[in-house]
Amino acid sequence: MAGSSHVDKLKLLSKEMNVWRSEKVNIFEGGCPVHGLVAYDPSGTLDPYKFFQRATRPEDVKIKILFCGICHTDLHKVRNEWGDFKYPLVPGHEIVEVVMEIGSKVPGSKFKVGQQVGVGCMVHSCLSCKECKLGVEQYCNKVVWTYDSVNFVDGSITKGGYSTIIIVDHKFVLKMPTNLPLDAAAPLLCAGITVYSPMKYHQMDVPGKHFGVVGLGGVGHMAVKFGKAFGMKVTVFSRSPSKENEAQEVLGADNFIVSKDPEKMKMGTSLDLEVLICVAAAHPSDPYLSTSKINDSLVVVGNPDKPLSINALSLINAQPDVGGSGIGGFNETQKMVDFCGKHNITCMIEKIPMSYLNTAME
Amino acid sequence: MAGSSHVDKLKLLSKEMNVWRSEKVNIFEGGCPVHGLVAYDPSGTLDPYKFFQRATRPEDVKIKILFCGICHTDLHKVRNEWGDFKYPLVPGHEIVEVVMEIGSKVPGSKFKVGQQVGVGCMVHSCLSCKECKLGVEQYCNKVVWTYDSVNFVDGSITKGGYSTIIIVDHKFVLKMPTNLPLDAAAPLLCAGITVYSPMKYHQMDVPGKHFGVVGLGGVGHMAVKFGKAFGMKVTVFSRSPSKENEAQEVLGADNFIVSKDPEKMKMGTSLDLEVLICVAAAHPSDPYLSTSKINDSLVVVGNPDKPLSINALSLINAQPDVGGSGIGGFNETQKMVDFCGKHNITCMIEKIPMSYLNTAME
Repeated sequence: MAGSSHVDKLKLLSKEMNVWRSEKVNIFEGGCPVHGLVAYDPSGTLDPYKFFQRATRPEDVKIKILFCGICHTDLHKVRNEWGDFKYPLVPGHEIVEVVMEIGSKVPGSKFKVGQQVGVGCMVHSCLSCKECKLGVEQYCNKVVWTYDSVNFVDGSITKGGYSTIIIVDHKFVLKMPTNLPLDAAAPLLCAGITVYSPMKYHQMDVPGKHFGVVGLGGVGHMAVKFGKAFGMKVTVFSRSPSKENEAQEVLGADNFIVSKDPEKMKMGTSLDLEVLICVAAAHPSDPYLSTSKINDSLVVVGNPDKPLSINALSLINAQPDVGGSGIGGFNETQKMVDFCGKHNITCMIEKIPMSYLNTAME
Repeated sequence: MAGSSHVDKLKLLSKEMNVWRSEKVNIFEGGCPVHGLVAYDPSGTLDPYKFFQRATRPEDVKIKILFCGICHTDLHKVRNEWGDFKYPLVPGHEIVEVVMEIGSKVPGSKFKVGQQVGVGCMVHSCLSCKECKLGVEQYCNKVVWTYDSVNFVDGSITKGGYSTIIIVDHKFVLKMPTNLPLDAAAPLLCAGITVYSPMKYHQMDVPGKHFGVVGLGGVGHMAVKFGKAFGMKVTVFSRSPSKENEAQEVLGADNFIVSKDPEKMKMGTSLDLEVLICVAAAHPSDPYLSTSKINDSLVVVGNPDKPLSINALSLINAQPDVGGSGIGGFNETQKMVDFCGKHNITCMIEKIPMSYLNTAME
């Protein structure tokens, strides 16, 4: 989701829902009984929870959830750090799964029962406004987020992927490439699209061009992977010298610069550089702009506590584009997933059992 | 010049150089004797000055200066407020004039003796780098500014339009439309192109679109004129309620909002608004971004003392383009001047005699 940054390494839930499936559940007005994990308060602890998703409409696909990524947004939401939390909350918006049931109005050849599919950050939007028509449904005024959002279909509060089943309009169900391991593909649906979309929008996909990635967490490491897949020369900027090996040896970055070193920063930023800032902590952006060239871009995808401080002269003297970006549209997400299938791109993950979830969240 | 903002109303010099022309001047190695006004120190006072421009080369046009605008940049430079001042300094980069002599290698039909021409902020650039090829010579590493710049042609420090004669490579001489009064057209060459260029670059030229101009000084009032000529709906934001009449009655703006009024600001910025910030004083930019929609632009052309403070979430939640811009390229300036000729656009000026200059600068 916009502004999310994944904790250290992306951690994935291996669902162990069987313990609850044996429990007796009351069926509610044709709705679908679901088991999940819920936050009742900002303590940060999730508890087992039984709830109902709506009955499958003709436009819907009913899906059995296999894996769900833990996104930093989930932590913010669970702890009510953004102050917009609606209890009870079932988090999760990096969901990979298989089709269980297909509504009668879903185009016949689109999905098959058993097919691997995905649901990202959105489950609906108005589909008729300027933003929807431009294919950026995430900026639609009526967008329905995968969790913690009022669903205009039935008025309920959406509940996310830390659960067993989800029911989604077929227009918001992604087809997952069959060659990718589903667990490591799950975070593509948030971390992946969060960097892929601005990279496409700001021409950070040109072979041979210099591309700077600031921060090497769950989001930043995906930017490095896409940068290399696009054929760019990738420089990673990080405060942690310890990330050099991961950046260069594991991810194949061409350069690694410790951002605390003024001399190396000067050298690194003197290039004709497109920069994607993938850290959620407050940090100076001027060093990346002070030597920027015509049409260079500086794009933020993390949301630090403090505002960005930008010297106007940096903007006037070189005409860079400064921007931000929040995830990406549905069709763009499908394109990104297909690109990952073709280039065998997945996320670095650490798979954890459900029983370990509360510890992992801490 | 980049970052300039014109004082209150643009003031123009009506040259009264005849008093000096009677003085005896030594001709220096075939160079051209020129009279002008010079700053010897940061006191802010200009004194009469005799100097030499180079002899006319085959590529050059020798030009008799008729009028020159006083730009805020001139004040900064004269007072050494940017700390990069080279004494003695002859300011002036909004120059309108007539052709006196044409070099032998200037294409035959390009200029005629007596033709009205103009020279803006630049008199040369390398013409071979990426920036020059893109037509943004103002961002060329070797750009030669019209004054206070090392001229790679002869190694001299360039001297500007507060003088009688200037000699310029024909590639940097603009043709002025014959229907425009030359005095009121002079500031087009800096104030005019400073807003025209970003308006074209950031699609602030679409009929019916909402366009916000922040600040109604020498630069801002040109943005309003171009906005109306492009057919946009123009809203002026200003701290001074007293500017309402000028904005709406004189310049034809559709709306006027006093930026100190939170309620009206909320209303004004709720539109799908492209914003051009034309003030050189520090000011908040977040109000213009907080309600921005997809692909809205916020562009600064003034250079305040303090850095801009921008909330990252404003960038992430709507994907606006934030940018800056410094003047414009040579061909774009010619296009702008031609556009002004076609639409009869000039600047609001106050014409002053040379004897009043030091008072006006104060």
